[in-house]
Formats: sequence, C-alpha cells, structure tokens
Amino acid sequence: MNKYIKIKNMAHFVPERLVTNDELASFMPTSDEWIVSHTGIKTRHYAINENTSDLSTKVANELLRKSGYKASDIDLIIVSTISPDALTPSTAAIVQGNIKATNAFAFDISAACAGFIFAMSTAEKFLRTGQYQRAIVISAEVNSKMMDFKDRTSAVFFGDGAGGALIEASNDSTDESFIAEKIETNGLKKEVIHSGRITPLSDINGDNYPTMDAFFQEGRDVFEFATTVVPVQMKQILADNNLQTSDIDFVVCHQANLRIIEKIAEELEMPIEKFATSVTHHGNTSSAGIPMALNEALEQGFTGGTVLLTGFGAGLAYGSLLIKI
Amino acid sequence: MNKYIKIKNMAHFVPERLVTNDELASFMPTSDEWIVSHTGIKTRHYAINENTSDLSTKVANELLRKSGYKASDIDLIIVSTISPDALTPSTAAIVQGNIKATNAFAFDISAACAGFIFAMSTAEKFLRTGQYQRAIVISAEVNSKMMDFKDRTSAVFFGDGAGGALIEASNDSTDESFIAEKIETNGLKKEVIHSGRITPLSDINGDNYPTMDAFFQEGRDVFEFATTVVPVQMKQILADNNLQTSDIDFVVCHQANLRIIEKIAEELEMPIEKFATSVTHHGNTSSAGIPMALNEALEQGFTGGTVLLTGFGAGLAYGSLLIKI
Repeated sequence: MNKYIKIKNMAHFVPERLVTNDELASFMPTSDEWIVSHTGIKTRHYAINENTSDLSTKVANELLRKSGYKASDIDLIIVSTISPDALTPSTAAIVQGNIKATNAFAFDISAACAGFIFAMSTAEKFLRTGQYQRAIVISAEVNSKMMDFKDRTSAVFFGDGAGGALIEASNDSTDESFIAEKIETNGLKKEVIHSGRITPLSDINGDNYPTMDAFFQEGRDVFEFATTVVPVQMKQILADNNLQTSDIDFVVCHQANLRIIEKIAEELEMPIEKFATSVTHHGNTSSAGIPMALNEALEQGFTGGTVLLTGFGAGLAYGSLLIKI
Repeated sequence: MNKYIKIKNMAHFVPERLVTNDELASFMPTSDEWIVSHTGIKTRHYAINENTSDLSTKVANELLRKSGYKASDIDLIIVSTISPDALTPSTAAIVQGNIKATNAFAFDISAACAGFIFAMSTAEKFLRTGQYQRAIVISAEVNSKMMDFKDRTSAVFFGDGAGGALIEASNDSTDESFIAEKIETNGLKKEVIHSGRITPLSDINGDNYPTMDAFFQEGRDVFEFATTVVPVQMKQILADNNLQTSDIDFVVCHQANLRIIEKIAEELEMPIEKFATSVTHHGNTSSAGIPMALNEALEQGFTGGTVLLTGFGAGLAYGSLLIKI
C-alpha cells in the first residue's frame, strides 16, 4: 500500500475565443446588465473546432512538462466530463493516445460539476492501494456544443475549459495532499439539471437514429441546492476533521455563478477573498471550473496551504475534498 | 484498510422484447443466415420505452434482495455504460435516487465494453482503502437507441441488458474475490469503434443544437484486436500469477461475437465449454455482457471457482480481472 499521495502539479487551459455578454446579446434576448447582475459573469471562452480531448491533451502535456515525467511514467488517466468527445471511446482514452502514455489505462467519469472531486478521489484510491504510482486527473468541458442558444436561462452561464492535476504515490508523510473527503449524491433531484438526454426506442421499425437534447437547468432549484445543502456538507467536512473555517487558506467551490459563491461564503461566515471567483471571466465550465480556478490562483501567487474543494451539480452530485497543496 | 473484498452477489436483467434475426431482416438488408454464420447471434432483446437507469435499477434491487442489505447500507454505486440516460446526470445517480440509497454517492464510468472490468476495479479500490464498506457495480446498456438501422454492419450485433455485482469489505481472508487485474488502453486506435460523437462549434451564431452520430465499428479491425492483442493480455495475467489455463474454471470474455470467443479459446488452447457464450441469445450488450453472462452461468449451475473476466472495446480499452466467486 502507498501510504501517502501527493498532488505534484496542476495545469489548466482556456480556449482562445473570448465571448462577451454583448456578443451573446447580439443573437439572444439577453443583456450584459442582466448576465452580470444575476451571475457575475463578464466573459467566457468557447472552443471552436476543438473538442474536449483537445483541451484535455493540452492540460496533460503541461502536467508532464511541469512534473518532468515522461508520458510512459503515467499509470492511469481519468477525465471527468459531461461534454465528452463521444459516448465512446472515452475522452481519457483519446488523451492517452494523443500523449502516447503507453503504460496507462484510461477512463472517463461522469459526475457532473462535482466531477473533479469524484475523479481525484477515484485516482487517489487507485494509488493508495500501492498497485499504481502516478495518475493524471483532468476535468474538461466543451459546454458550448451542448447549448441551445434559444434557451437564455441556461446558455449564458457556460464556458469551455480544462484543468487537472498529476498525483503520485510517496513514502514521505509530508507529501500527503489528501486530508479528507465527503461525497454525496441525491438522485431524487435528477430533473433539476440535465444535458444530452437520449430517448429509448418506442417502436422497432428501422427508422432510429440517435438524438439528444440540450443542456437545461432549473436556476432557482440549483441556487437553493447550492446555497443550503452544499454549505452543510462543507461545514460537516470541517467539523469531522476538527477544523475551523479559520484553518482553511482557500476555498474553491464549483464556479457556477458568483452569486452562489457569495452566498456560500456568507453561510460559512468566511470572507469572499478566501474564495476562488474565476467564474467572472471563464463562466461556468462545469467540472473543469475547480482545477482551472485552483491552478489560476497558484499561478497568481497563492502559495498553497489547506484548501477546501467543493463541487456540486447534476445528479445531484456533490462532494468536498480537503487537500494540502 | 480493508484487507479483503468479496463479491457477495450478482444479478442481471434482460428487457422483455425479443428481436430475432428475421425481424431485423424485415427492415434491413440482412438475413438470419448471414448474422448466425458471422456472429453466432440468434436473438437479442431491446428495451422499449425503458432507459439504461430502468434496467440498472432492476439489477440494483435484485442485488439488494439477494444480499439482504437495505439500500441505505450501500456506500457507493458505480454504473458503467456507453449508452447512459443522459450525459448528465449520471445513470448511477438516477439509480441511487430510484432505490433510495441515501448514504451512497454515485457516478458513471465510460470504458466501453471493458466497462465492467474498469468499474469493478474502481469499486474494489474504494473499498480496499477502508473508507467504504459496500458498493453496487452495474454495467447497463440500451444499445438499441444508439443504432442506425441503415448500417447493417453494426446494428445487427447489438442488444440491451444489464448486470452487476454487490461487493463488500471483509476481515476474513477466505472472502477475497479479487485475485489480480491487468488493465490497458490504446487510444491510438480511437477510430475503430465509436458511438455518440458530438461535434464542437465551428462558428458562434446562436443556431447550435447538440447532435450526435450513431454507433459505428470497423468489424475487421475489431476482430483483429480482439483475437490477437486481447489473448496476449489474458495469457499475461495468468503468467503474472503463476497460473495455467487448467487452473481457470470459467472464462467470461466480452460477449461481442461468438466467432471472436471461439478464436480466443483457440488462442488460449482452452475448450470452448469453459467460455461463456450468452452472446448467442443476448447479442452484444457492450459492457453489460460480462456480468450478464457470469450471472446466467451461476444461475444455470456453475458452482463457482477461479474465473477470468476479460473486457475489450472502444478506446481501445481492455482489461482482465481474475476473480474467485
């Protein structure tokens, strides 16, 4: 068994094309004023002619570059996404091929905007058993392709991007990055957020061709869940580990909406300055938002410490990781 | 840490509607003679107005019934599927809500027709760390909804179904079910099998609505991979564990095609009688085929022993589990 698991590096990638609120308002009945006041979002980026595996591959290569490892040193690649290149093959398998990680197996995890939490926890478990040494965990989303731009209640929130971490096993106790986790699901609320639903056959007549629907969310229900149930989980993981909010150096919630993050900070009685708020310029990038925001903070001078990561989204799936980075 | 992990129960479910080769031939340019001679498949079942979560829920409830556990005793639900109800929420989350597994978190794994191997390995890792006690692992597919019935080279192979296992941690060494695993991926062959590809935006104009394509496979490339690369992995996991083929009581390969299974048996120099061949009546049910075939064998009198499970499919993803059941 590997006693300790370390987050060695992080990386993120944002596609080039910037999309302003004014540009969205040019073809949708919305406005910069409405979007900013309701969501805090000023800009987001869209991937044009680039798919989820392309964004993921950029993150994987950057993780390798930073770590100094070769692709062949990696044992496991997990991609969390709700906007994969395809239902199959997995986006992780495409990344494995792109970077030529010849010794790695690869699979995708679907856990909505909590995907980075679920995927990091999963990779940590594979390494903890001692059978594997190094994993790349990426959360990547090309949400733009899943949008119905006729639906202004959903489409204005979303952006594209990818982020991830390279984690590895260690025998040095000071390397341990994973302090605690609390992961939950409430499938009774499956209707609140959904994307890409595929209808089964109603008849067998040779006419089938698969179709899916666009991203949809019930904004009020999401806000309610994110600002009541989610802070309870966040408080619980602190209490379970005898920590106060003052022991936490930085909080990275799912970057859903600035108003949700402000409300969570209020519920936890913590200053908003301790919270990542990259949603303002990247929009809601689903599962990618947490690693993107955390790596952005590290690049902008956050020197590390005890960090609470909390993802929440469709499922409802919600999970918190207490890490040291 | 939990030292030992036991496969406590298995279950499977096949939807009611039987589809014969003659019925397919009534609306596609194919024939019973062609399908049987090339694939060994005589019948398959299609889910009509039932989605992947419905099939999965039947398996989950049967696992609970057989085990005597309450839904609230379950800590973790993993569904492997390449034909989920939706891109999000996960099919596992819907199952979690349906069975009211209030203490379980849930997520989907996408690893194509090797999904049951990847999902069982993942669940085993979560339990092995000692943080969780009981998991339900289900592989479920409604492949019929992903078919283009104009494509006779793919559509005739597939069927729908679900199978799974309830696994739990134990302190008794005689309970250990997981002997060894070997899991690989070759993403350079991502084009050989794919389903549900989603194209990114090429332009931002407000007209997007998400679309995906149907299931596709290059039959010859799949046959080549499944009968050369896959048997090498199967021989390797035996060699790595100092086992002879004579030590193996039963082999459950991915139920892709009877001709592939026959060829694998020949490559391993093992009698075909030691191989599950439920593909003949269920068709290729993707990741669901392995647990369906194993549980069917158990129901039909297989009293257990050392079993080799080998899944292979899009990715290319391929993995073997040596288990005791």
